[in-house]
Amino acid sequence: VSLLTAELTHDPRLAQRVGAMRPSLVREMVAAAARRPLLSLAGGLPPDDAFPQRAIADAAARLLAQADPSVLQYSPTEGDPALIEVVVSDLRERLDITVNEGDVVITSGSQQALDLSAKVLIDPGDVAVVERPAYVGALRALSAYQAQIVGVSVDDDGMDTAHLAALLDDGLRPKLCYVVPNFSNPSGATMSAARRVHLAELSERYGFVVVEDDPYGQLRFAGTDVAPIASHGVGNVLYLGSFSKVVAPALRVGYLTAPAWLTRPMVVAKQATDLTSSAFNQRLIVELFTTNGWLADHVKLLRELYAARADVLLSSLATRVGTRLHARRPEGGMFVWASVAVPGIDASALTAACLRHDVAIVPGTEFTVDGTCAREVRLSFSVLSAANLDEAVARMARGFDDLEAHDNGRST
Amino acid sequence: VSLLTAELTHDPRLAQRVGAMRPSLVREMVAAAARRPLLSLAGGLPPDDAFPQRAIADAAARLLAQADPSVLQYSPTEGDPALIEVVVSDLRERLDITVNEGDVVITSGSQQALDLSAKVLIDPGDVAVVERPAYVGALRALSAYQAQIVGVSVDDDGMDTAHLAALLDDGLRPKLCYVVPNFSNPSGATMSAARRVHLAELSERYGFVVVEDDPYGQLRFAGTDVAPIASHGVGNVLYLGSFSKVVAPALRVGYLTAPAWLTRPMVVAKQATDLTSSAFNQRLIVELFTTNGWLADHVKLLRELYAARADVLLSSLATRVGTRLHARRPEGGMFVWASVAVPGIDASALTAACLRHDVAIVPGTEFTVDGTCAREVRLSFSVLSAANLDEAVARMARGFDDLEAHDNGRST
Repeated sequence: VSLLTAELTHDPRLAQRVGAMRPSLVREMVAAAARRPLLSLAGGLPPDDAFPQRAIADAAARLLAQADPSVLQYSPTEGDPALIEVVVSDLRERLDITVNEGDVVITSGSQQALDLSAKVLIDPGDVAVVERPAYVGALRALSAYQAQIVGVSVDDDGMDTAHLAALLDDGLRPKLCYVVPNFSNPSGATMSAARRVHLAELSERYGFVVVEDDPYGQLRFAGTDVAPIASHGVGNVLYLGSFSKVVAPALRVGYLTAPAWLTRPMVVAKQATDLTSSAFNQRLIVELFTTNGWLADHVKLLRELYAARADVLLSSLATRVGTRLHARRPEGGMFVWASVAVPGIDASALTAACLRHDVAIVPGTEFTVDGTCAREVRLSFSVLSAANLDEAVARMARGFDDLEAHDNGRST
Repeated sequence: VSLLTAELTHDPRLAQRVGAMRPSLVREMVAAAARRPLLSLAGGLPPDDAFPQRAIADAAARLLAQADPSVLQYSPTEGDPALIEVVVSDLRERLDITVNEGDVVITSGSQQALDLSAKVLIDPGDVAVVERPAYVGALRALSAYQAQIVGVSVDDDGMDTAHLAALLDDGLRPKLCYVVPNFSNPSGATMSAARRVHLAELSERYGFVVVEDDPYGQLRFAGTDVAPIASHGVGNVLYLGSFSKVVAPALRVGYLTAPAWLTRPMVVAKQATDLTSSAFNQRLIVELFTTNGWLADHVKLLRELYAARADVLLSSLATRVGTRLHARRPEGGMFVWASVAVPGIDASALTAACLRHDVAIVPGTEFTVDGTCAREVRLSFSVLSAANLDEAVARMARGFDDLEAHDNGRST
C-alpha cells in the first residue's frame, strides 16, 4: 500500500485523477500495490534521472557565497529582474516572440499562471473553452472559479478550430480558450500552423483571450517547430512557459507574457495570491541560463532521453499490443494518447485489467468534463526505463488477453 | 528614481500600498528619491542582515549531495512529509497545539494560506471580519473573492471582541474572521488571552472560521507568550504559520493547520492553484530545523535584533517627536503603530511632510477599507540600523516642524 501511496502522493496530478476514479478501481489499485510495485504509465512527471542536480548545487553554492542578501528576501511581485531578462531573450531567440520586460510576470509554476488567468478573467458562469481531452490541472483551475467548461475536439493537428468556429457561430461567447499547442497533455497532439493562425483570428473576432500553455515546447524530438500563437502578434494571447520540465519541478518557477492591458491585473492577482515567487529559485534559474552552453547541452540530453523512451513505448505497443490499441505518435513531450480498438472493451475496463497486472494507466474520461474519451487512455513514457516500459506494455497485453478471454468465455 | 523604484519593487506590500496612495504623494516620493536615498520606515520586510545565509548554503550543499532526486521533483500537494513532521512537533512543543500530520498543509508562504482560505470559504458578497487596521495582504486576498470586508476596532489588547459580539448580535454573519493575534501588522497590538477565548467562543456560537495568522509569534521580545486561539481546541480555527520571518521570505514556505472538515478542501484548492510548494525549499527548512540548536540560536539572535531596533525607534520618537505622536509599544514583531496628536495634522499630511525630508512612512488609511485610521501611521523598525532609525525620526520631527510652522503661518 505504501508504494501506491508513494506513487500517488508523489504525483499530485495522478493523485487527483485517481481520486476522481470510481472507488472500486482505487481499491483494486491498492490491492495491486500490496502485491508488488506498480509500473506506472500514469504519471505526468519529468524523469528523476535527468535532473541537473550537480548544476543546481553549483549554482546554489555560487549564489549563497555572494554578499547579496536579496537572494533570500521577497522578490518583486512581477519577478526577479534578471530572470525576466532571461525570459525576454529566450522568447526572442527561441520563438521569435518580441515582448518587453514589463510584459512578463514570473509565476509559481505555470499552474499558477493558469490560476491567475482564471482569477482575472472568469466570473461564475463564464465560458472557458478547452481541448477535449484537456490537462486536468486546467479543468481544476477553471472549475475553482465556477467557469462553464466547453470542450473542443482534438485530432492529429490539435484543437479543431473549425469545431470552435462553429460553436462561436452558434453564439458561444467564451472569456478564454486554454490550449497546449505543443505535444498536448494528454493528447500528445501538436496544433498545426494553420489552426494556430485560425485560433488567433477567432480570438480577435470574438474578443476572448487565448491562454497558450507551452510547458513541453523545448522537448521536441521529431518534426519541426511551429510558431506559437503568441508570435502572431494579436493583443489577447497569454503565453505560459515553465522551467519545471527543462530544469526541475521543485523550483516552482514558470512565467507568463501578457498583452499590456492584462499585465497589471495579473500582477495584482498574483500579489493577492502569494505575494511573490521564490527569489532564491528564480536566481538559481538565472545562474543556470547564464552558464555558457549549459541550456543547449541539457535540452539536448532531455530530447534524446524522451525520444528514446517514446520509441520504446511505441514499438513495444506495436509488437505486443498490435492493432488492439491505436496510438498517436507524438513529436515531443511525455504522452502517448491511445484509443482502444477492440469492440466491447472501453478504457475503464482496460485500466482495471492493467491494474490486475500491476501496471497503471489513466482512462480518457479523467480529462473531460462530459464523460467523452471513454475509449482512450493516456500513457506516459517519461519516467520508466526502456526495460520497464517494455515490461509495462507486456503486462498491458496480458490485460487485453484477459479481457478478450473473458469476452469469448461469455459469448460461447 | 531608481532608488525609489528599487525600494518599492523590493517590497511588494509597500509597492502595493504606494500604488493605492494618491498620485501627488507618489510624485513627491519619486522626486524625493531623485534627491537622495529615502530612509524607509514603510516596509514590512525582515532584516537582510540577519538572514541565515551560511546555514542555508550548508543545508543546500548537503541536500544536493545526496542521491535523492525527490528534492527536485514535485512534492505532494499537502507538503513534504518530513516538513509536516517538523511542523507538528514544533506546534506541540512551542505552542501546545496538538495536530495530526493529516491536519497540516504546507503553503507557498502564509499569503497563500490566506488566499486558499478565501477561495474555499468566500462566495461573492460573503462577510469577512478583519482587524481595523488590517494587514493589506488580507484585504487584497479577500477582495479578490469579492468578500464584504467588515473591520472590528483594535486597541492595546488587540481586536475588540466585544465590538465583534455586538455586530454579531445585530445580525452580522461572517464566513471567516481574520486576525493576527501576536504583534499584529500594522497595529503591533497583541490580543489578550481573554479575548482569544472570547473569539473562539463566538466562532463556535455563530459558526464562522477563525483564520489565526501568526507570522511574528516567535519574534516576541517583551511580555509573555499568550496561548494561540487554535490551542482552545475549537473545530473551526485555521492556524497559519510562516518560515519567512524565522528563516527567509525567499523560500516562500508557510503552513496551515485546519480542522478535519477543512483539510481536504484546502488541499484541493491548493492543487488547483499551484500544484505543490517547492520540494527543495521545504527540505531546506527541514535541514535547518533538524540541525541541533540552530533554531534556538537563530531565534534568539532575531529577538535581540528586533528588540534593540524597537527600543531605538521608540526612544528616538520620545526624545525627538515627543507628545506630537502617540506610539504603541509592541511586545514583538516589526511594527509601531502611532497616532498623530497634533490638532489639524492628519496621517496623510504627516506622510507627505516626512517624504519632503526623505523618510517614508505609511498612513493608516492604507490598512482599512472605510477611510478610518486617518490619524494613524505605521512605522517599521525591522530594516534600518540604529543610526538610520534615529536619523529617520529626526527627519520626521522636522516634518512635524514644517507642518506646525505652516499652520502657525496660516493662523497669523
